[in-house]
Amino acid sequence: MDVVETGPERPLTARGRRTRDAIVDAAAGLMYARGIAATGIADVLAASGTGKSQLYHYFADKSDLVLAVIDRQLERVLEAQPELAGEDLQAWAASVWEFHRAEGEPLACPLGVLSGQVETDERWRARQAASFTAWQDRIAALLARGQRAGRVDPTRDADELAVGVLAALQGGLMLARLHRDLHVLELALAAAVDHVRVRA
Amino acid sequence: MDVVETGPERPLTARGRRTRDAIVDAAAGLMYARGIAATGIADVLAASGTGKSQLYHYFADKSDLVLAVIDRQLERVLEAQPELAGEDLQAWAASVWEFHRAEGEPLACPLGVLSGQVETDERWRARQAASFTAWQDRIAALLARGQRAGRVDPTRDADELAVGVLAALQGGLMLARLHRDLHVLELALAAAVDHVRVRA
Repeated sequence: MDVVETGPERPLTARGRRTRDAIVDAAAGLMYARGIAATGIADVLAASGTGKSQLYHYFADKSDLVLAVIDRQLERVLEAQPELAGEDLQAWAASVWEFHRAEGEPLACPLGVLSGQVETDERWRARQAASFTAWQDRIAALLARGQRAGRVDPTRDADELAVGVLAALQGGLMLARLHRDLHVLELALAAAVDHVRVRA
Repeated sequence: MDVVETGPERPLTARGRRTRDAIVDAAAGLMYARGIAATGIADVLAASGTGKSQLYHYFADKSDLVLAVIDRQLERVLEAQPELAGEDLQAWAASVWEFHRAEGEPLACPLGVLSGQVETDERWRARQAASFTAWQDRIAALLARGQRAGRVDPTRDADELAVGVLAALQGGLMLARLHRDLHVLELALAAAVDHVRVRA
């Protein structure tokens, strides 16, 4: 995740990186809270304390900035889930639940909340889809380690199981937000964890 | 679902009901395709071929119309899933998958697609949440019948299992739409069906 995938194709100075990060973080926060359409360049400039010429130094336009926001939200999700590197889906699910319990409102996946908003731009949709694939691959790798450790049903395809786990998380979050009830997320995750476990 | 829950509190004539239905169907179609915010009253009038005075005879404002659209989409979902009245979750899942295969693009739940858009109005959110609860209760009833028929694990709480099933469907649809791949929905539903089945 260290490669800057949007903006000019040249290395950034430490200061340049800080400025770019400030812009992306501000945009990510606004788009998380309000949505992509309701977030204008002027809002991002005000929230990040940067100037228009700085922003356009790093990003060709708002569409370009959205791609960087998707990358940033994937980073944020993966950083918040160190248990992805382990072999215990239960521990991972507990960390996801704890993240949302601590985060409070809005009860939404930093990445998933963008999914309904990327249909209008094929570049956004493709980047969002690739981000979910990257996340899903980490879950599949966890499940494969779990299979080797005797925790996860070895008769199943870890990649296919990972689709079900990620769907349970995303659907559980959608319903939990709608009902204003974190317990809904807990139930959805518990079902996913129970599904993959090895049977006696 | 025969009770008109919004608009004037008096019985509608057959013609009045047809007019009201035409308005709600047009609004539902537009909001499904474009979203609530991008659908104006003028669009609904044009699409339904009705006049402004007719629309305001049945609905106080756009906010009122959105509530009727949520009710209509719940009706549509339940009508498309007659297998909900049965005891076989596998048959239900197959019918859901078939509905989306036949429907094609946009690959989205007629009801669920509104979930990300109801946060700005507490009446919308509450109605959307109640609609999902109604749907979930039907799934729980199916699972309870499945338990009595020996199809579904009898040691689990049918209401809790239903949360996991609905989360899998909603999350599976979100990911399938993002990846433009109906197989993702199939995998998510298969995991949910497999999870609830009775173990040998």
